[in-house]
Amino acid sequence: MANTFGQLFRVTTFGESHGGEIGVVIDGCPPKIDISEADIQHELDRRRPGQSKITTQRKEEDRCEIVSGVFEGRTLGTPIAILVRNKDARREDYVEIARKFRPSHADFSYEAKYGIRNWQGGGRASARETIGRVAAGAVAKKILSILYSNFEIVAYVAQIHEIIAKINRSSVKMKDAEKNAVRCPDIAAAKRMESLIGQIRNAGDSVGGVIECVVRGIPAGLGEPVFDKLEADLAKAMLSLPATKGFEIGSGFAATHMRGSEHNDPFEMRRGRIRTATNNSGGVQGGISNGEEIYFRVAFKPTATIAHEQKTVSTSREQTKLSARGRHDPCVLPRAVPIVEAMAALVLCDHALRQQAIDLPALE
Amino acid sequence: MANTFGQLFRVTTFGESHGGEIGVVIDGCPPKIDISEADIQHELDRRRPGQSKITTQRKEEDRCEIVSGVFEGRTLGTPIAILVRNKDARREDYVEIARKFRPSHADFSYEAKYGIRNWQGGGRASARETIGRVAAGAVAKKILSILYSNFEIVAYVAQIHEIIAKINRSSVKMKDAEKNAVRCPDIAAAKRMESLIGQIRNAGDSVGGVIECVVRGIPAGLGEPVFDKLEADLAKAMLSLPATKGFEIGSGFAATHMRGSEHNDPFEMRRGRIRTATNNSGGVQGGISNGEEIYFRVAFKPTATIAHEQKTVSTSREQTKLSARGRHDPCVLPRAVPIVEAMAALVLCDHALRQQAIDLPALE
Amino acid sequence: MANTFGQLFRVTTFGESHGGEIGVVIDGCPPKIDISEADIQHELDRRRPGQSKITTQRKEEDRCEIVSGVFEGRTLGTPIAILVRNKDARREDYVEIARKFRPSHADFSYEAKYGIRNWQGGGRASARETIGRVAAGAVAKKILSILYSNFEIVAYVAQIHEIIAKINRSSVKMKDAEKNAVRCPDIAAAKRMESLIGQIRNAGDSVGGVIECVVRGIPAGLGEPVFDKLEADLAKAMLSLPATKGFEIGSGFAATHMRGSEHNDPFEMRRGRIRTATNNSGGVQGGISNGEEIYFRVAFKPTATIAHEQKTVSTSREQTKLSARGRHDPCVLPRAVPIVEAMAALVLCDHALRQQAIDLPALE
Amino acid sequence: MANTFGQLFRVTTFGESHGGEIGVVIDGCPPKIDISEADIQHELDRRRPGQSKITTQRKEEDRCEIVSGVFEGRTLGTPIAILVRNKDARREDYVEIARKFRPSHADFSYEAKYGIRNWQGGGRASARETIGRVAAGAVAKKILSILYSNFEIVAYVAQIHEIIAKINRSSVKMKDAEKNAVRCPDIAAAKRMESLIGQIRNAGDSVGGVIECVVRGIPAGLGEPVFDKLEADLAKAMLSLPATKGFEIGSGFAATHMRGSEHNDPFEMRRGRIRTATNNSGGVQGGISNGEEIYFRVAFKPTATIAHEQKTVSTSREQTKLSARGRHDPCVLPRAVPIVEAMAALVLCDHALRQQAIDLPALE
Repeated sequence: MANTFGQLFRVTTFGESHGGEIGVVIDGCPPKIDISEADIQHELDRRRPGQSKITTQRKEEDRCEIVSGVFEGRTLGTPIAILVRNKDARREDYVEIARKFRPSHADFSYEAKYGIRNWQGGGRASARETIGRVAAGAVAKKILSILYSNFEIVAYVAQIHEIIAKINRSSVKMKDAEKNAVRCPDIAAAKRMESLIGQIRNAGDSVGGVIECVVRGIPAGLGEPVFDKLEADLAKAMLSLPATKGFEIGSGFAATHMRGSEHNDPFEMRRGRIRTATNNSGGVQGGISNGEEIYFRVAFKPTATIAHEQKTVSTSREQTKLSARGRHDPCVLPRAVPIVEAMAALVLCDHALRQQAIDLPALE
Repeated sequence: MANTFGQLFRVTTFGESHGGEIGVVIDGCPPKIDISEADIQHELDRRRPGQSKITTQRKEEDRCEIVSGVFEGRTLGTPIAILVRNKDARREDYVEIARKFRPSHADFSYEAKYGIRNWQGGGRASARETIGRVAAGAVAKKILSILYSNFEIVAYVAQIHEIIAKINRSSVKMKDAEKNAVRCPDIAAAKRMESLIGQIRNAGDSVGGVIECVVRGIPAGLGEPVFDKLEADLAKAMLSLPATKGFEIGSGFAATHMRGSEHNDPFEMRRGRIRTATNNSGGVQGGISNGEEIYFRVAFKPTATIAHEQKTVSTSREQTKLSARGRHDPCVLPRAVPIVEAMAALVLCDHALRQQAIDLPALE
Repeated sequence: MANTFGQLFRVTTFGESHGGEIGVVIDGCPPKIDISEADIQHELDRRRPGQSKITTQRKEEDRCEIVSGVFEGRTLGTPIAILVRNKDARREDYVEIARKFRPSHADFSYEAKYGIRNWQGGGRASARETIGRVAAGAVAKKILSILYSNFEIVAYVAQIHEIIAKINRSSVKMKDAEKNAVRCPDIAAAKRMESLIGQIRNAGDSVGGVIECVVRGIPAGLGEPVFDKLEADLAKAMLSLPATKGFEIGSGFAATHMRGSEHNDPFEMRRGRIRTATNNSGGVQGGISNGEEIYFRVAFKPTATIAHEQKTVSTSREQTKLSARGRHDPCVLPRAVPIVEAMAALVLCDHALRQQAIDLPALE
Repeated sequence: MANTFGQLFRVTTFGESHGGEIGVVIDGCPPKIDISEADIQHELDRRRPGQSKITTQRKEEDRCEIVSGVFEGRTLGTPIAILVRNKDARREDYVEIARKFRPSHADFSYEAKYGIRNWQGGGRASARETIGRVAAGAVAKKILSILYSNFEIVAYVAQIHEIIAKINRSSVKMKDAEKNAVRCPDIAAAKRMESLIGQIRNAGDSVGGVIECVVRGIPAGLGEPVFDKLEADLAKAMLSLPATKGFEIGSGFAATHMRGSEHNDPFEMRRGRIRTATNNSGGVQGGISNGEEIYFRVAFKPTATIAHEQKTVSTSREQTKLSARGRHDPCVLPRAVPIVEAMAALVLCDHALRQQAIDLPALE
């Protein structure tokens, strides 16, 4: 379903970027989970604009309100609705894009699909839609932490344009990513990235990059063998994010340069558990987790909104030109880090509940 | 749902690699579509083992039978069930893998998930499961051809290990790919690939590579803006295939090395239609097709089954070794080409029907 | 899915009776439908408490706000979210039911299911949940009116306790039902019902009855042959309403007293169309509409909340007694009439869109 | 989805009455359940034609074959496909109904929906479709028996035309229903029913009646509060069966004649458990089981196929007449008993797995 994600832990987002409210309904959340607005606000603040000098300077408070499904601090098992109020739009800010299709934005394709679009701030295609995902992801993380004592999810910026960070994937912690504005755990690379983003902004241009995500503490056995493979659901989750162009799990595209004898992950016994000696599989085999670290990478294109003057076409089908005004992120990656984590948490939480459903205690 | 794919054009596959039958049920197929077993058999023959000297020499006939949903050569609107009988297994062929987990196969993760597995030939994780997908894809292609007169889908091998083909993506045709055993339209590269695959087989090893897929004739407006973005559903479809490790649409990972001013696709008027001057978007913007060619790439790892002796662990949790016997594909890509096409057709057909559902004729 | 209804026109409700907001998200609504808060408010006012002297005297304004999915008065194709703010609860009003399970309410079964419940005003089991259904039903009615020019849906009270109304099902109009507080088109019966409800209220007791619903203007061909038969989806829709105990379509339970030769509806030609001479089928044959009037009846039990002192058990598992205080409906039927209509509209709108999806114009 | 039933225990049926095979795919079945073809065949034999002198004398063997999902006698967790081969149709038997719409059958509505139909034996609308439901129900019963040690499901004929059986609902056992051909536990009534059915058959006519179903051993807590109420899903399940016209749970339509003070089920402590003194609720409150017996009643119309000459219309839209030939059930109820049980088991098994999904062990 278009605006719903998940089979058992089902997240429905709604809202455009302007007018009224933006929000999420979470259906299928187990009861008795401790959850507060502060838990959710913490994650929302990580994706909020204006949090550092390299993100857009727009100020959006994005205060969340839980309006149902939580009672005296605990989930009820009924739908959790979380709302964030939009700021009032200044209609005149959008007069130009009401008449012109912004290149590499969704303006034209929405118009083709629906024959109507909310041209204020991108409408439903606005990245504000991800607020609901991040809010739901905060709840999913809680559940995963209850189910799996060593659960941990860490996303970080691994590359910005030509700058590639050096990161020890198996030891990196969330605090390492959070300690700078770029959310890159390699401090030297982070500095260069920060400087590059500043130059790019001054040049009225934009850049993209790669976010890497590592998940630890997921036991073997999550995922479904055929269409709902864990990597398939992760790929869908990531490609459903604005500005993403690619996804790879484990060895990814690099696997195409290896031979089977190099790529296969031999099994071995370690501390009484079956483990793999290497982890080219990225923690998933045949669509099902094997107990190793799950890791994947997501490619983000450079932000489509740039200050450069661009050629385009008007809604009346005439050639024209367009220059973005206002304050935009020259690079979305730092703010996308918590969103990648949220989507990964949604996928894993859903599969965790699905696994619970088929585990009959009487047959253990 | 684990074994069902699609919202409106819904495909459910079933069957393990050995014992009984393997098949597919297609629910939601429009009525009155001409379809025959020959149409489906044609596609099944493209994925069949033993079709050329670079694929596995196992002989599997894979004759399909339509057992419901088609009457006097036309679809009824009721579920189409298509069956293919499995050959009888020789139980002794699988005695070793009943007791040992094959590296980078799904044996261990299935065991962890279900506490039981059909160890004959990989059971449900066998690539035979894709027979049902290809059969359903043949029906989806028919529907897309009825809906869109210029519809065309072409997948081909773009890379094997270090050999990268040179292909003009915008002019390549299915017959170009079909004219050699590797299914690579660059004849020179195809020859080198064929030779490499032969060497790799003799060395008891395996290789992977990249399949590229181009879809033409899809109008602007297919896809959903949020979770069911066209690229998200394509990513899921591709990562749900055995042996895949990555997916990229349009510019893909290469986008991370570009600036916004280079990457954006300017709109322009061409022959009275709104078009983009470049196509880094890969035919999809904001999750919705924009009328340009849709193209994407899929990374396949080297086949996990190799003749080399490998370290592994037994089901009784002891260190052991394993060497694959029998006839296996040293490279899955040539046979995966029709499967990639089939999955792309399933995604597009589903979105085409979804789009029909919301197009109220009275509001045109 | 527990809180989502429909396959293509998908309605998700959320909210408990107290605290925060109650609302609905409609996903899959076609674009370009004229819709306003006034359209929705009109239907909400029909279900509102305090609208007449025979309904509860609680004053609830239930003002709706459309917070997304509508732009300049027309639907966008994106999710429509509609919110209604709850009044602040007086916590002390619910102290008793926090500790005691109300007979024939959901208090105990919720506790058994979730191990936690929002004891304020019934929480999620409150009839306030139906606000979201009625709001979504208003949108569904709009769509059905666009698709089918003669579309009309009329529900009315056909029986209260022992008083059975005489109604000409084929000529009754919504205005006939709306002209009295009981929503019964038989004026004489309506008077007796009104008087009975008054007496019952004074006696601190409650009564139930039957609502009948007629739908006109639905063409032949809506519905699905097997599990999603039109009557099956209507039955589910009606039994999902609070206080319902039974559903019958067409001849219903009375069919069990007829012979096939009496019950069968002969086909005949009338004004150039295939019609049935009688309509025991209730407009549906084999799960699919046949173009005749669709009609069905729904049994509602007497309201569970009564002023009588009742035996029950406390949450600490001790025998106790309970008397309801406050203002409650002694008979829910008059206010349930618009809810029955709304649910019927949701079912029919969903099937109308499903039918559109499989109608390939090229094959007409 | 049209041909799929259930959220977690998902059953997809396929096949028409003639040509090829009819069958079912069960997805979401937990692994390690003992299941054999004999278990399934036992239930299929209860619905088989020709099992007694009051059912149709057509001989259909209906031998089932499990073609996937079961290995060495236990479920694998992968899709279970079960097939039954159809007998070859004698095309000439159906020449007349190819040209004429049978009254109160689905011939006309299918034609209106799809513009095509398989006129052999009713095609997809044939009661043969229920073979798949019964096969899946056999698996569901197994799972429910594993989960709930006292689980028991008993359906029986409670009424045929004007003959109403006297049955002690709380003590009746399956063997009581199985001991006569009518499947009515009241022996005296059963005799009269059997005699009536014989007369009706000789008169070339048909009769309907009521099947009652009791389920014991379901704990409190199954079902969902809003749309997927247990009674709503049961109502849908029953109305999705051919020839059904009504459904009532607990007190049902009789509740409309009671006052709240009579109808409410007081809670009381019994043997240390919370129980209700009466059970007008039918074991479900607010959509969720309360631990009492679940019971409901289903109205079946008289069989549409009768030997009487009937008025109808031809496919070329001319008035004509039609008399059924061949051997048909003059009363479907005896054979519908196992189908009612199967559908109830599917609903309950699905909700049992859904409940497992949200029960986090760490929070007990």
